[in-house]
Amino acid sequence: MTTSPFTLLSSSSECSARCGEVSTQHGTIKTPVFMPVGTLGTVKAVTPENLVDLGAQIILGNTYHLFIRPGHELIKEFGGLHGFMHWDRPILTDSGGFQIFSLKDLAKITEKGAEFRSHHDGARLFLSPEDTIHVQEALGSDIMMVLDTCIPYPADREEADKATALTGRWARRCRDAQTDTGQLLFGIVQGGMYQDMRRRSAEELIDIGFDGYAIGGLSVGEPKDLMQEMLAATVPHLPDDYPVYLMGVGTPEDLVEGVYRGVDMFDCVMPTRNARNGMLFTSSGRLVIKNSRYRDDQRAVDEQCTCYTCRNYSRAYLRHLFQCREILAYQLNSIHNLHYYCSLMALMREAIAADRFLDFRRAFYAGREQ
Amino acid sequence: MTTSPFTLLSSSSECSARCGEVSTQHGTIKTPVFMPVGTLGTVKAVTPENLVDLGAQIILGNTYHLFIRPGHELIKEFGGLHGFMHWDRPILTDSGGFQIFSLKDLAKITEKGAEFRSHHDGARLFLSPEDTIHVQEALGSDIMMVLDTCIPYPADREEADKATALTGRWARRCRDAQTDTGQLLFGIVQGGMYQDMRRRSAEELIDIGFDGYAIGGLSVGEPKDLMQEMLAATVPHLPDDYPVYLMGVGTPEDLVEGVYRGVDMFDCVMPTRNARNGMLFTSSGRLVIKNSRYRDDQRAVDEQCTCYTCRNYSRAYLRHLFQCREILAYQLNSIHNLHYYCSLMALMREAIAADRFLDFRRAFYAGREQ
Repeated sequence: MTTSPFTLLSSSSECSARCGEVSTQHGTIKTPVFMPVGTLGTVKAVTPENLVDLGAQIILGNTYHLFIRPGHELIKEFGGLHGFMHWDRPILTDSGGFQIFSLKDLAKITEKGAEFRSHHDGARLFLSPEDTIHVQEALGSDIMMVLDTCIPYPADREEADKATALTGRWARRCRDAQTDTGQLLFGIVQGGMYQDMRRRSAEELIDIGFDGYAIGGLSVGEPKDLMQEMLAATVPHLPDDYPVYLMGVGTPEDLVEGVYRGVDMFDCVMPTRNARNGMLFTSSGRLVIKNSRYRDDQRAVDEQCTCYTCRNYSRAYLRHLFQCREILAYQLNSIHNLHYYCSLMALMREAIAADRFLDFRRAFYAGREQ
Repeated sequence: MTTSPFTLLSSSSECSARCGEVSTQHGTIKTPVFMPVGTLGTVKAVTPENLVDLGAQIILGNTYHLFIRPGHELIKEFGGLHGFMHWDRPILTDSGGFQIFSLKDLAKITEKGAEFRSHHDGARLFLSPEDTIHVQEALGSDIMMVLDTCIPYPADREEADKATALTGRWARRCRDAQTDTGQLLFGIVQGGMYQDMRRRSAEELIDIGFDGYAIGGLSVGEPKDLMQEMLAATVPHLPDDYPVYLMGVGTPEDLVEGVYRGVDMFDCVMPTRNARNGMLFTSSGRLVIKNSRYRDDQRAVDEQCTCYTCRNYSRAYLRHLFQCREILAYQLNSIHNLHYYCSLMALMREAIAADRFLDFRRAFYAGREQ
């Protein structure tokens, strides 16, 4: 039996929202938390100092991408991903399961593992559940993820059942492959859009015993209400004294709904990717910076925001940089969007601690309807 | 007669190298100085805070580019370029002369001014000497430049003579057009590769009277020794109690030679452009970061360097970022190269103050032959 890294600090009296801490080798994370995505050993367009400044507690690295470039053995020589990329706070690494799923025709899943062709140079590669643990141990992340098989949407029962069962067997092989590094390992619940399968998947993982439980295979094209339904059908079957992580989700609205349903951890490329496309998140909704209405707008992107970008630059300047494709545009936009996501989580933590999460949630939606 | 903004602090007893200060509305610059180029209201891939941290005292803005995007009238509404781009140290703006020269077939020079087509959208535009002053006054730069006509290399005497004479007439019109804003205005010596014309151009400008004197039309394709010859034939004809600025130059070696011959100010896109192409300057020469020999090199780019990049990242990490075309690669490379240029100037100032500039120059070349 494992000792949970999770400490519950407070819970909402009206819903499943909760505040806690997850203890890792590189420090403690306050939850609910958003994890910026640093695919290739950098959160795109920002420095580690920017991340600390904007309130990031933990970042995510992609095992699949780092396995291909520059390779885990190289990163290990640099004291793991922390030393390689100059980041001393916690890191979670995914297992590569989702990326292999995204490769579609370039990947072949067998009982043994995933055979795939590199998206980078077409090289034939293979990752077994054991391999992904080996790679993640070399990367030295604080939280490792098991190799799972993601299920497309839609998928029939047979397909979903087969993939979910394989995910369960792989989860056990990952747990068995883990050596005594002190890194945490999270299981991943699959089950497609079938409530009974989600429950069975959760039970299998609990039976194995992990340091945390992730919900995978959501936000894969299904309607929003189906995602919420699956979340509601899954979280109650997870042990409430362990961290719960909703993978690859999502919009600010998704984060609020996830927290409402008891999720502790989130990651998504949306704040950074949208930043690079000129879409900025604000307390009153989304802002497309290239819009000509901002041409001479002297206001900050979000006048409520305290980020570096909003403290120092106008919408007009950001629009000018974006129109000119200046690199600084991507830097400043990314800082703002990540700050928005991290601040949103901080506001939710405060609201839960004060037991006024439902008030917060109402105000959040009201602000966006202005 | 103008009062010079220049104060001489020390001179080499062995050559023309000198240390001084140039006083502007946004503070005093220690010379010799290198000015990072911020073409479109941003020094590419770095923040103003990065610039302060790496030792930039003054930056350059391009009148031509800012006139086209986003327009000087817009920038004026933001308190000029300083307010628009969040930079409170001095700014020098060029006049657009060199950019119009670079447009070649898209530009037509007449007595009245330069007719040209925008490189951005092909729009027909016109800039007279008076217009460039008007635009630079709107931008609010600390140091403005006169509109000049740059001479291609090679050029025959007739062509060079015609352009140099026009530069002289335009310089007078610029001086006359200037209003009482407290901004400094520098004249630009032309004359092609003809020593007598360089001298005549200098004398014409001195006759008008400027706050500083720039040497234009060098580094336009001529051999290095011809550039040095022209420099040697021009600087002695400039008043030694005014700042001397060598425009658009150059390599680290060019900076050392320029200082040796009495130049106080330099600008060039080389440190930032080369950074984005993965070429890094070091105390022992140039380093091409994508080279496979750096694949697992744990050393800093330059082990003597104290910049943010060298303090925190390895060559292997920088190579990885560059190979993956990560935006952080451009940020970190630009910080390093600009720090190299600014530090080189600081070392030269120290050497001149200690009257050991020739020793410094010898050691500089010896370091690069290793």
